[in-house]
Amino acid sequence: MAVSGVVDDLLADAMERIARDIDTDFDSLLPVPDEPRLKLVEAMRYAAMAGGKRIRPLLLTATAEMYGVDRDAAVRAGLAIEAIHVYSLIHDDLPCMDDDGLRHGKPTVHVAYGEATAVLAGDALHAFAFEVLGEPAVSADPFVRIELVRTLGHASGFNGMAGGQMMDLVAETSEFDLPTITRLQQLKTGALLAGAVEMGAILGHVPVEGRTHLRGYARDIGLAFQITDDLIDHEGNAEVAGKAVGKDARAGKQTFLTLLGPDRARAQARMLVEQATAHLADHGKEADLLRALARYIIERDH
Amino acid sequence: MAVSGVVDDLLADAMERIARDIDTDFDSLLPVPDEPRLKLVEAMRYAAMAGGKRIRPLLLTATAEMYGVDRDAAVRAGLAIEAIHVYSLIHDDLPCMDDDGLRHGKPTVHVAYGEATAVLAGDALHAFAFEVLGEPAVSADPFVRIELVRTLGHASGFNGMAGGQMMDLVAETSEFDLPTITRLQQLKTGALLAGAVEMGAILGHVPVEGRTHLRGYARDIGLAFQITDDLIDHEGNAEVAGKAVGKDARAGKQTFLTLLGPDRARAQARMLVEQATAHLADHGKEADLLRALARYIIERDH
Repeated sequence: MAVSGVVDDLLADAMERIARDIDTDFDSLLPVPDEPRLKLVEAMRYAAMAGGKRIRPLLLTATAEMYGVDRDAAVRAGLAIEAIHVYSLIHDDLPCMDDDGLRHGKPTVHVAYGEATAVLAGDALHAFAFEVLGEPAVSADPFVRIELVRTLGHASGFNGMAGGQMMDLVAETSEFDLPTITRLQQLKTGALLAGAVEMGAILGHVPVEGRTHLRGYARDIGLAFQITDDLIDHEGNAEVAGKAVGKDARAGKQTFLTLLGPDRARAQARMLVEQATAHLADHGKEADLLRALARYIIERDH
Repeated sequence: MAVSGVVDDLLADAMERIARDIDTDFDSLLPVPDEPRLKLVEAMRYAAMAGGKRIRPLLLTATAEMYGVDRDAAVRAGLAIEAIHVYSLIHDDLPCMDDDGLRHGKPTVHVAYGEATAVLAGDALHAFAFEVLGEPAVSADPFVRIELVRTLGHASGFNGMAGGQMMDLVAETSEFDLPTITRLQQLKTGALLAGAVEMGAILGHVPVEGRTHLRGYARDIGLAFQITDDLIDHEGNAEVAGKAVGKDARAGKQTFLTLLGPDRARAQARMLVEQATAHLADHGKEADLLRALARYIIERDH
């Protein structure tokens, strides 16, 4: 990560802090039972505490912080969205899906614990996410909690992440045009990133009509994020990325990269990040972390 | 189904009605999209509208009706718990899990649509369940909705259904005693059945201290349900059951049946159903459907 200057120190500190907070929450809410469910909870913890970048919780807490939301409450909501992200990675890595053996530089869950346990660990993390949102630790206000549930359910289901993963499967054998690839990525990756920002706004009691600029920011960084993922897959180093690279080309999959080529894709990602920060123009210093995050999203190498 | 008499007509009518209502709700809330997600939603509908018995929605609506809850609202909450049940069947049938090719007399989802789509269809139905509970159609009161979310999340996660499925995997290679088998079944099947009754009580604004008898009823029918499932697997006819039978014995799995033998298992199920109806002694006619359901649970042949 190439970060420098005051704003980038802000980002580095925030990334360290959210990683620590999310690990602490997973650790305390997923105690290892002393019985035959042991392996399930171990597999959940193995996947959940594997050192991910925690981008979604960071987006959520950074947004919530702009509106003065209590840190612990925002972290707890961030834990829920991270649990959804982690479950999706476990299932995505399965032999019948992407068949990946490496994630964050470690064997994937089905390699370490077997396929059946991997399916169940994903399912259990999925339920865990919504159970977490049901608890008052997220917010004393039941309306806020149920709005978080609604948002996360929509962002992760057939109108969101799962729908995008389906399009991704179809992409291996179809010729998609740019609008269809854009739609695919908006669902597959964008929906959950946008959900994180939306959940931060819900916690901050921002009314729907006051969220337009945040949604614009989220949409733009979502696409920039995916284009950068494509570039990492294309140019990246498996050791740095912590996962297999060059997969898309081998699968003959249509991506932004195959349609635009690397130079135009990189330019597009930069343009999207500028556009994303422009949406935050009416905010002052309190939006610096979201601005830094937008830049980080295209500068990262893993 | 061997039913006769007024109370059993009540049950037969209620079963027909809930099956129709749940199908109508799935049909309207899962519209088939005209795009690359088509196959995902088709697979979800294929699994969700396959003619299951809808025991969980029936338990939920029957409980809710005792407390005067609006029918449409209760059906909608029933749809959510049925979506969880259906997703669990899809994942349970996967080659890496039980590897079943037949369900409700039709090819299972991974046979009909492929394994990757089956994983995603299960995941999408899982998210759908919580999205449904987030909507005001379930209840105008956000506190009621979030309590439903909490209950369903807990009942389906590692402290409920998914935990029980993990114990079930372990059971294939371990020697479990009767208390451990009981715990396994309470989690694997019992948690969701009990969740259905609990959700009905939540919709009916029954305070926690007023739910003790309902929880007793639910615990007893949950175990009776599983013992009957074991008996159907042991003695059943694949054509009537609509799925493979004799699996437990082939897998060398410990069940109530292997520990108790068929005669004691059958007697135990009957005793549990008597105990379940005894919990309803303070209710009048309004609990007749729950009483009939308890008897049906051990009389069914599929």
